[in-house]
Amino acid sequence: MLWSKPLISRLTRYLRVLRQLRSLGFAKVFSNNLGDAVGVSAAVVRKDFSAISIGGNKRGGYDIDYLIREITEILGKREPQEAVLVGCGRMGSAILQNKAIEKEDIRIVAGFDVEKEKVDHTAAVPIYHIAELKKIVRAQKVEVAVLTVPDENAQEVFERLLDAGVRGFLNFTSVPLKCPDAQLSDGCVVHHVNIGLELEILFYLVRAAKEGTLT
Amino acid sequence: MLWSKPLISRLTRYLRVLRQLRSLGFAKVFSNNLGDAVGVSAAVVRKDFSAISIGGNKRGGYDIDYLIREITEILGKREPQEAVLVGCGRMGSAILQNKAIEKEDIRIVAGFDVEKEKVDHTAAVPIYHIAELKKIVRAQKVEVAVLTVPDENAQEVFERLLDAGVRGFLNFTSVPLKCPDAQLSDGCVVHHVNIGLELEILFYLVRAAKEGTLT
Repeated sequence: MLWSKPLISRLTRYLRVLRQLRSLGFAKVFSNNLGDAVGVSAAVVRKDFSAISIGGNKRGGYDIDYLIREITEILGKREPQEAVLVGCGRMGSAILQNKAIEKEDIRIVAGFDVEKEKVDHTAAVPIYHIAELKKIVRAQKVEVAVLTVPDENAQEVFERLLDAGVRGFLNFTSVPLKCPDAQLSDGCVVHHVNIGLELEILFYLVRAAKEGTLT
Repeated sequence: MLWSKPLISRLTRYLRVLRQLRSLGFAKVFSNNLGDAVGVSAAVVRKDFSAISIGGNKRGGYDIDYLIREITEILGKREPQEAVLVGCGRMGSAILQNKAIEKEDIRIVAGFDVEKEKVDHTAAVPIYHIAELKKIVRAQKVEVAVLTVPDENAQEVFERLLDAGVRGFLNFTSVPLKCPDAQLSDGCVVHHVNIGLELEILFYLVRAAKEGTLT
């Protein structure tokens, strides 16, 4: 089947909530509860499930184990998924040391930095000099990277990662990186996390909501 | 006029790009360039502009100064916009010390932590004990907060902030905080930044794109 980015994003979110519910001992879930947890309407949940051929049971809700099995299957097999992080400054270190990120088989396997003093091969997540990036990324076949370098280095590091075979980027810089056309067909995706922009949007949303003009 | 969250989000993003273009000396911009920079199609840009009554000029592109003036006006007056941050651990400190966030009149004016050792009234962004949260937030009429506390404290801190008058939340915990119904009409909005979830989505997107099933 064909996927849109928002659909994959929602299915991943459903999966997270379903796993949490299962760990709490729940067996069934209704589309409106799942929608509430993910921030979409029950109709969207039902439409998404119907798109991936999951039938509903209006009486008792969906079976959680069944949903997890089906969504996992349709999203693809879950090998441990390994990422690297480039730029071990304050934000980068905070992410490397955040245990909460390493869920659902996701692991950050290496950090890279241009400063030799930051290199530490014995850390929980080893930190290498950036000169070793291509070698290590290729050897471990890493396809996803977190970018926490200063803005002025973002484009250069992005290109080095592309060259090493990375195709998915979580970009914490405020530089609007874009995959080159030549790599797009190769699975290149950039997600931006821009905290300043998120805050600016929040200010506008709060105002609009207060004025009663937010639909 | 009535606003949807995605529309406000896109207008804020256009505004950021337009300001960057202006600072580079550009005077005109085409809808397809602006769309590329924000990650939407030219048609969406034109539809958004038409929704806020900005007319196009197919020949020479849109006038950047005019766009900035109109979008700024429609999004509302730009007083300096002040936020607080709760939870001055690694992630919280990294955000407090990230100068790039303080753009476009956005300022984080105070940090709060439960640990007395973190209190530092003389820091660039002063850090207070959480016991002072309500007093300071109310006195400064702060309406937006960044939440970087451990998951187990998220709900409690969220409720304290609500009680102090905060209505916009940038939630870095993995707890799915939701505004209580009683506060929704009062402008309450929660945005989630979940780095683990973003990575998980990236892995799926890269795979789908590589398999050629991403639309």
